[in-house]
Amino acid sequence: MTANPSACVVIIGNEVLSGRTQDVNVNYLAKRLGELGMPLREVRIIPDVAETIITTINEVRARFDHVFTTGGIGPTHDDITSECIAADFGVPCEPEPTVWARMAAHYPPGGFNVARQRMATMPRGAVIIDNGHIAPGYSIGNVHVMAGVPAIMQLMFETLATTLQGGLPVVSRSVHATGVREGEIAEGLTGIQARYPAMDLGSYPYFRDGVSGVAIVAKGTDLAAAEAAIAEVTALFETLGAAPVAGEPG
Amino acid sequence: MTANPSACVVIIGNEVLSGRTQDVNVNYLAKRLGELGMPLREVRIIPDVAETIITTINEVRARFDHVFTTGGIGPTHDDITSECIAADFGVPCEPEPTVWARMAAHYPPGGFNVARQRMATMPRGAVIIDNGHIAPGYSIGNVHVMAGVPAIMQLMFETLATTLQGGLPVVSRSVHATGVREGEIAEGLTGIQARYPAMDLGSYPYFRDGVSGVAIVAKGTDLAAAEAAIAEVTALFETLGAAPVAGEPG
Repeated sequence: MTANPSACVVIIGNEVLSGRTQDVNVNYLAKRLGELGMPLREVRIIPDVAETIITTINEVRARFDHVFTTGGIGPTHDDITSECIAADFGVPCEPEPTVWARMAAHYPPGGFNVARQRMATMPRGAVIIDNGHIAPGYSIGNVHVMAGVPAIMQLMFETLATTLQGGLPVVSRSVHATGVREGEIAEGLTGIQARYPAMDLGSYPYFRDGVSGVAIVAKGTDLAAAEAAIAEVTALFETLGAAPVAGEPG
Repeated sequence: MTANPSACVVIIGNEVLSGRTQDVNVNYLAKRLGELGMPLREVRIIPDVAETIITTINEVRARFDHVFTTGGIGPTHDDITSECIAADFGVPCEPEPTVWARMAAHYPPGGFNVARQRMATMPRGAVIIDNGHIAPGYSIGNVHVMAGVPAIMQLMFETLATTLQGGLPVVSRSVHATGVREGEIAEGLTGIQARYPAMDLGSYPYFRDGVSGVAIVAKGTDLAAAEAAIAEVTALFETLGAAPVAGEPG
């Protein structure tokens, strides 16, 4: 719909696929990428399996302007993201001098062991995302490699974000009405969507405390268009005798 | 690692990609599919774009034994999952007689409008997931099509689950130790993983209330192997002077 650059997120880790961990990285990145004008277009959640990682990254880095990965850059046997990304780019995975020196100085004698040395080993050409964290993420080409732990991922992303060239921020306006059902407004909504083709009009039923209704959200890069579309939705709600309220249900 | 059937989940909906909605369907399905012995191997989160839905479903239904979709089967303009899946299977999308008759009887005169009729329109050959809900999900081939609203998705899935042929349930055992860092146990853990190749050994650092440590989880279909692997991890923690505790940190 817009010329904004596109983003894809790849969550690498068995813990999300096994149900051990409720992922929260997608939601954080989705919001922030929208704000940066680099809307999230697709997410893959894949296991710690080298062939799957290599194939997935090669596919999505060709299809999207930016790829953000989380997970698999720690010191343990299942942390294989860096080797896989090196394979994708056809480069060696080798010590990154700045990180290696920093980590060697950080640990007590013997502490910078073989396992930790893997965290200082990156695809040749990687540019580290340097926020002072002892084991940083990095970018190579259009692939940005971050940790899986949410607090660390967020620090890495915010450092990275200052260097990314986004587009127009995605903005939204919304309205909701209790007692309305999607099936009653669907046809009217189709007409409104057709009049605002650059807007993404979403319809979301809600059920809370025994009360049901529908919230409509207009998203796009044109605030005036979002406001105009939501004004039409508000009028549509009113034709049904409902009492629309601006925003989403609280 | 096992002969268990594989599962893929496809979340269809702009609301997760825009950050409006924190997805919880993946976590629910991940846990339940593991219990059913049909482990979740990959997740795709894709927008309400016909070409993307068609391409994605055709790819994953060839790669995995079962595909579970959520979202896009309501009455509004952005609910296009059924047309896309019909295209994938090369069949018409047409009124499903049982659902059509039920919905026609359910609504007051005029209430079963064009928008709601779309919810009774499915790919030819679809087998409805019938739990009495007015607008059901359905299966076609190895693709199982469910609603996006979590409460409704869960009802559909549990009805569907009684008909699925799973494999050996995935079980897990775990141990954690405060004060230990991943980098100290990574080499020992690599050796343990090598001795239990059918187990999936995961390492998860934690940080809570100012305390940090590592939890190790062994997952697989062989409980005795999971217990033996975790016994070795417990011994590894003890060699570091730590006090390992069974289970994950509460």
